[in-house]
Amino acid sequence: MAQTGRAPADPAHGGDPKRLTILGSTGSIGRSTVDVIRHADGAFAVDALVANANIAELAAQAKAVNARLAVTADPALYGPLKDALAGSGIEAAAGEAAVVEAAGRPVDMVMASIVGAAGLAPTLAAIEQGTTVALANKECLVCAGELVIAAAERKRIGIVPVDSEHSAVFQVFETGNADAVARVILTASGGPFRTFSREEIASATPEQALRHPNWSMGQKVTIDSATLMNKGLELIEAFHLFPVDEDRLDVLVHPQSIVHSLVEYRDGSLLAQMGVPDMRTPIAYALSWPRRISAPVERLRLEEVGQLTFEAVDGERFPSVALCRSALRRGGSATTILNAANEIAVAAFLSGRIPFPAITGLVADTLERAEGEAMLGPVATLDEVWAADAYGRRIATDLAGAL
Amino acid sequence: MAQTGRAPADPAHGGDPKRLTILGSTGSIGRSTVDVIRHADGAFAVDALVANANIAELAAQAKAVNARLAVTADPALYGPLKDALAGSGIEAAAGEAAVVEAAGRPVDMVMASIVGAAGLAPTLAAIEQGTTVALANKECLVCAGELVIAAAERKRIGIVPVDSEHSAVFQVFETGNADAVARVILTASGGPFRTFSREEIASATPEQALRHPNWSMGQKVTIDSATLMNKGLELIEAFHLFPVDEDRLDVLVHPQSIVHSLVEYRDGSLLAQMGVPDMRTPIAYALSWPRRISAPVERLRLEEVGQLTFEAVDGERFPSVALCRSALRRGGSATTILNAANEIAVAAFLSGRIPFPAITGLVADTLERAEGEAMLGPVATLDEVWAADAYGRRIATDLAGAL
Repeated sequence: MAQTGRAPADPAHGGDPKRLTILGSTGSIGRSTVDVIRHADGAFAVDALVANANIAELAAQAKAVNARLAVTADPALYGPLKDALAGSGIEAAAGEAAVVEAAGRPVDMVMASIVGAAGLAPTLAAIEQGTTVALANKECLVCAGELVIAAAERKRIGIVPVDSEHSAVFQVFETGNADAVARVILTASGGPFRTFSREEIASATPEQALRHPNWSMGQKVTIDSATLMNKGLELIEAFHLFPVDEDRLDVLVHPQSIVHSLVEYRDGSLLAQMGVPDMRTPIAYALSWPRRISAPVERLRLEEVGQLTFEAVDGERFPSVALCRSALRRGGSATTILNAANEIAVAAFLSGRIPFPAITGLVADTLERAEGEAMLGPVATLDEVWAADAYGRRIATDLAGAL
Repeated sequence: MAQTGRAPADPAHGGDPKRLTILGSTGSIGRSTVDVIRHADGAFAVDALVANANIAELAAQAKAVNARLAVTADPALYGPLKDALAGSGIEAAAGEAAVVEAAGRPVDMVMASIVGAAGLAPTLAAIEQGTTVALANKECLVCAGELVIAAAERKRIGIVPVDSEHSAVFQVFETGNADAVARVILTASGGPFRTFSREEIASATPEQALRHPNWSMGQKVTIDSATLMNKGLELIEAFHLFPVDEDRLDVLVHPQSIVHSLVEYRDGSLLAQMGVPDMRTPIAYALSWPRRISAPVERLRLEEVGQLTFEAVDGERFPSVALCRSALRRGGSATTILNAANEIAVAAFLSGRIPFPAITGLVADTLERAEGEAMLGPVATLDEVWAADAYGRRIATDLAGAL
């Protein structure tokens, strides 16, 4: 847990603009980050923007925020990027090494929003440089939480979560009162199958699973939301982000996605963060932390929402939270393997190769096999993370083929 | 607004116990305070307990918490108190002067929970001594807010609110981000007449008005809850406690009394404090602030509560919030006169002399008369507070007699 590092520059209260780099600027979080920056009246100065293949948008963003450097991960796209930036004075670069190099340039904060395993190396590069990280990449903490947090603690830098649930916890977690925290409670929409029977879930189609009630997200995370695996992965992240043991982490189903998470204290208080489901709020909070800036989001009017409802997670229909808990208790490679197996399982479900309940079944079976093959153990380097990841993918693929 | 004063001793993290005095120890808040202290395993040491006429309970409390001094406000009860304390080694004292003297003894915190105008002088004595005050007395801020806050600022001491609504705001008000606060939102149960029509309210009886849905309180405050005057008075208190203008203070009806209040920020975040309706939570928070201790309260289980609802205040049926706003904008004696008139009006309603809607009518008429007679102006001393209070009572009594 590294959230109490040095506070970065203070854009909300005058002074120099806070210097930012955005890793993954053309993804959903990256776009919203650019939105928040453009709304913030010069509070931020963008150093580098890093994207994958969407050169047109990357170049347009770089010009709009007056970045110094734009980087594409694809070396073949260096020419097109350079052309698109011609005359702007913005530098262009390309390739994986350039991405990591951009992440390591000295700035006040790096928004780490590259999706998937590709986000890990550049995020670690930012941490090693001593830069405060706004963390929107799940894999960093799910696959390599011990590694990432150890690096952040060594460098004494803050990791500010961007995920709406973790941002909510971060906003109401009193670090001075960590010993008085009774529970950290992550809310879950419950996904599209919240009210489905076990039989209905068994025959659920990818089309049904992709209809998320509140958030518009990518396919992988939408399926994770339907299995509640998403919430289990967030539980693993919360364990690394906040100084609480696994048995003080809880999940609460809240279909309206208005209360983004809560912290319960020993004196009976529950502190909660609420808001309309719009990622620009947690992004603005992460960028301006420990201050708050204005964000271009709709204001929550509880009198218009009318009612908020809450229910317990049904572990029978949704076993993934318990599965993640048990991997978290094992620690080390267990969560890396779980995450890898889940990616394979979700892809197999989306392509119609396995039924919906087999997603969590496959993950459980992969972990069981890993235990039997003595593959559960500590991961101390990025190479060990990749090895565990590759192992999980291989086993899950084998098992899926046998279904 | 004086909430960011020196932090007192830190009972939650070892060290010497925090020394406390309780003003009003046999009232509802006082009893709960004693409860919290007895639950807190030696984190607190009680210096003085101050009560009115309940000698038996005062003496029993003093022995239970091993106080040094017990004081009754009634000089005639000195003998009985001394007898009740015989052999305990606890000092006895009696009379108004002894109460004020007890409040001014050097301790780490004074719990100011004497009900009504009688609480004002001892609370000011504690502030003048430089003692952090846990404030449970409404009159201090409603009748003499400018005076009390000026004294607290001069002495650089913290005023920690105990009222559940203000405690909630205090818990989620980021003092470093006061400029980013969009609204402070006080929740209101809506009282027993929330769903009554205007006609039903017009013929409401004292028995109906005394049935409060969630909190068990005294008669006066229960009627104030039925008129929503209570929420208007809390709006006045909030204005003095927090650095926000009147137009950033709002009221939201929330019948379940689980969300005790909220703060909305410019980035779209609403932070809320929740809990079961039990005053021991805000009391424990006030006593241990800025730390948190364990409190003997039932834990909130939102999955068991199931649903929380919210609605706007209907200003047609409940004009008192707007009335308090307008007095607050006038400032000075206006809120003192409003409070005095309301006390007279509530008594007149409880004794069957005026109908329910005439309570707010009488308050409005008293303020109008005060304006016509040029009686609205600044109050700079306690004597001026008492003069405004007496004026308000006289006018309201006259007007009630004429109904």
